[in-house]
Amino acid sequence: MEKEITAKAKAAKEAARKLAYIPTDVKNNALLAMAGALRKQCEYILEQNTKDVEAGREKGLSRSLIDRLLLTRERVEDMARGLEMLSSLADPVGEMDAMWTRPNGLQVGRTRVPMGVVGIIYEARPNVTVDAAGLCLKSGNAVVLRGGSEAVNSNCAVARVIAGAAQTAGIPEGAVQLIENTDRAAVNVMLKLNQYLDVLIPRGGAGLIQTVVQNATVPVIETGVGNCHVYVDSEANLDMAQNITINAKCQRPGVCNAIESLLVHKDVAVDFLPGTLQRLKESGVEVRGCEKTREIVSWVNPATENDYAAEFLDFIIAVKVVDDIDEAMDHIYKYGTGHSECIVTDSYSKGRRFQREVDAAAVYINASTRFTDGGMFGFGAEIGISTQKLHARGPMGLKELTTIKYVVFGEGQIRE
Amino acid sequence: MEKEITAKAKAAKEAARKLAYIPTDVKNNALLAMAGALRKQCEYILEQNTKDVEAGREKGLSRSLIDRLLLTRERVEDMARGLEMLSSLADPVGEMDAMWTRPNGLQVGRTRVPMGVVGIIYEARPNVTVDAAGLCLKSGNAVVLRGGSEAVNSNCAVARVIAGAAQTAGIPEGAVQLIENTDRAAVNVMLKLNQYLDVLIPRGGAGLIQTVVQNATVPVIETGVGNCHVYVDSEANLDMAQNITINAKCQRPGVCNAIESLLVHKDVAVDFLPGTLQRLKESGVEVRGCEKTREIVSWVNPATENDYAAEFLDFIIAVKVVDDIDEAMDHIYKYGTGHSECIVTDSYSKGRRFQREVDAAAVYINASTRFTDGGMFGFGAEIGISTQKLHARGPMGLKELTTIKYVVFGEGQIRE
Repeated sequence: MEKEITAKAKAAKEAARKLAYIPTDVKNNALLAMAGALRKQCEYILEQNTKDVEAGREKGLSRSLIDRLLLTRERVEDMARGLEMLSSLADPVGEMDAMWTRPNGLQVGRTRVPMGVVGIIYEARPNVTVDAAGLCLKSGNAVVLRGGSEAVNSNCAVARVIAGAAQTAGIPEGAVQLIENTDRAAVNVMLKLNQYLDVLIPRGGAGLIQTVVQNATVPVIETGVGNCHVYVDSEANLDMAQNITINAKCQRPGVCNAIESLLVHKDVAVDFLPGTLQRLKESGVEVRGCEKTREIVSWVNPATENDYAAEFLDFIIAVKVVDDIDEAMDHIYKYGTGHSECIVTDSYSKGRRFQREVDAAAVYINASTRFTDGGMFGFGAEIGISTQKLHARGPMGLKELTTIKYVVFGEGQIRE
Repeated sequence: MEKEITAKAKAAKEAARKLAYIPTDVKNNALLAMAGALRKQCEYILEQNTKDVEAGREKGLSRSLIDRLLLTRERVEDMARGLEMLSSLADPVGEMDAMWTRPNGLQVGRTRVPMGVVGIIYEARPNVTVDAAGLCLKSGNAVVLRGGSEAVNSNCAVARVIAGAAQTAGIPEGAVQLIENTDRAAVNVMLKLNQYLDVLIPRGGAGLIQTVVQNATVPVIETGVGNCHVYVDSEANLDMAQNITINAKCQRPGVCNAIESLLVHKDVAVDFLPGTLQRLKESGVEVRGCEKTREIVSWVNPATENDYAAEFLDFIIAVKVVDDIDEAMDHIYKYGTGHSECIVTDSYSKGRRFQREVDAAAVYINASTRFTDGGMFGFGAEIGISTQKLHARGPMGLKELTTIKYVVFGEGQIRE
């Protein structure tokens, strides 16, 4: 097994050497060809997907997991459209961020180049296979994909279709690799392949991500854990605050940029909490609150320390009444995961303080945390949301899949 | 021991929270105060340094190691001047790289913020204590320093002096930490302190760096391994090529941006090699060459595979005659470490090809690889030279010690 994985990673590395400077046109045409192949081979993909779905049902996977696994004609069409959209985005490779001349006449330029080989380790959704391959290809990277066991037939089918189409369209052979072995041990091999992999991006639950972070020697971009907050300040527009709270909690609670806790300034708690918590309840949210919250709204369940620390990813919210913005920021400092944080206020000075002092990938004034997303930020596409500080932070688009290279132009300069 | 290290890292993390948004003025004044304190406490520092030097002599350290360890009045003055120079550089923190407005009116800005806490693990030179602390402070980071056992008294003295001065000048207490325990086990504790350390930068020999890369769970920026090449093309100005070769090899062979191998196009080998290799020999360089090289210059020793792969960091060079630029680039692909590579040519198309196709932090046309350096590139200062692709590549200045934060301004926007 180790031999197979190493061979695939090596092949990807070799492909990456040429892929690094292939013209944008070739990459765009390949993306379009891949989209066309997905449509053309849709029956085959659905057939293979059925095997996974049936196996999943036999194994007793939950309905939501089965739904994440399931491909339909429509979902295959969405994948194809995603690739077409990627082909229309600007290519970050070859951008010259800066160029300057040194006193000795040496001209130094900083240009964007691909990472090389990107390893993606992910869980159930087969669409990640297509998304990740497309993003890596467009940014000039070879990719080694390793999906979860539940989707192995779907992933193999999809990978075969797009890799074949890419190669026919002029992409170097080996640029898209799928590790078909779904044992945990296969992941462990990838984690140590520093010789061939330039970066690893885990996409999935906290367990997967921690396994990768704790054991990889290949550099990792950590993604996705979000214990996010909305703080409703004493000078908030309370209608706005309510709408933002409901949206940030309920619009899609299972994702990392949804909020898990609500912090409310004591001066507006009596006005704000009853209506807002009622609306949350009506949306199916279980509300857990501090003592003060429960004095104001009696039906609220008590919140524990663990509730403030939890990433529920579910219809549950923890509520706390705070004395002032300092207590709110201290709470966020203590429990936040540095993902997305929001203050609702009309105070210029408090808005500024919150944005300056809260340390997170995205800090909002008067808007839902749900906007922390490559699409919503206008990046066109996203490979994940980084919650580390090294290399990338927040939504990662094509640019975050590149690195830099200094190009230096001389006329014989030597160092004195 | 673990308790002590964790406590220091925790104190650094707490200091980092405030240090992140402290005004540039305060940081600059602190740097000047630190420089003043170094001068004032010079006697004390030299006294402590004498202990290290004496212990080193007793342990039988080599003369060059003793020299790296030794502090003099002049070297302390250099440290002080380094801090003063840092105070004059632009502060990257707070720079807004970009700001744009989304169709829904949401305004998204990308601003530079400090990493938080930077861990530096380094070897003999006590000046790294001052350099690293100054760079981290200027970029708004707290720092946890862990120097080598040989310099422990010097490092403690220097750290005490600068940390005290910084605090008096308004820097939060705890921002500069030195781990005084010099056991290997102390490094191992640091490598896993993800809770408090945001990034680790090892500075030293290949052994130290590999230990850190292989065992850290904290994100690492790998620095410093350089197997660099000069390729002399058939269309090179041979005088220029000779000067660049001599400079890149001899000016300071012990550093990572010096070359280890020389590649020469077969058409110019007879003209180029005799004079150049003679000059190398006269500079004290041992020359090891391929068969063709030895046919041209008989006194050259034979080169092995290992010689082409080696980072000598010494007065040794490996020479190979190649058929063309493709063979040169294949050789660099096989043996290079992605640090600095140079082509000497007057061919526009070959210069372009080399710069596009060679994957390294810095790719030169007609200039010495010795310019890969923060100072030489104009960054004012440098914390190291990254040889990885994640986050930073090539010389790292103040900007590379920062990350980004998205600040988002809304008027109640919610996600549909």
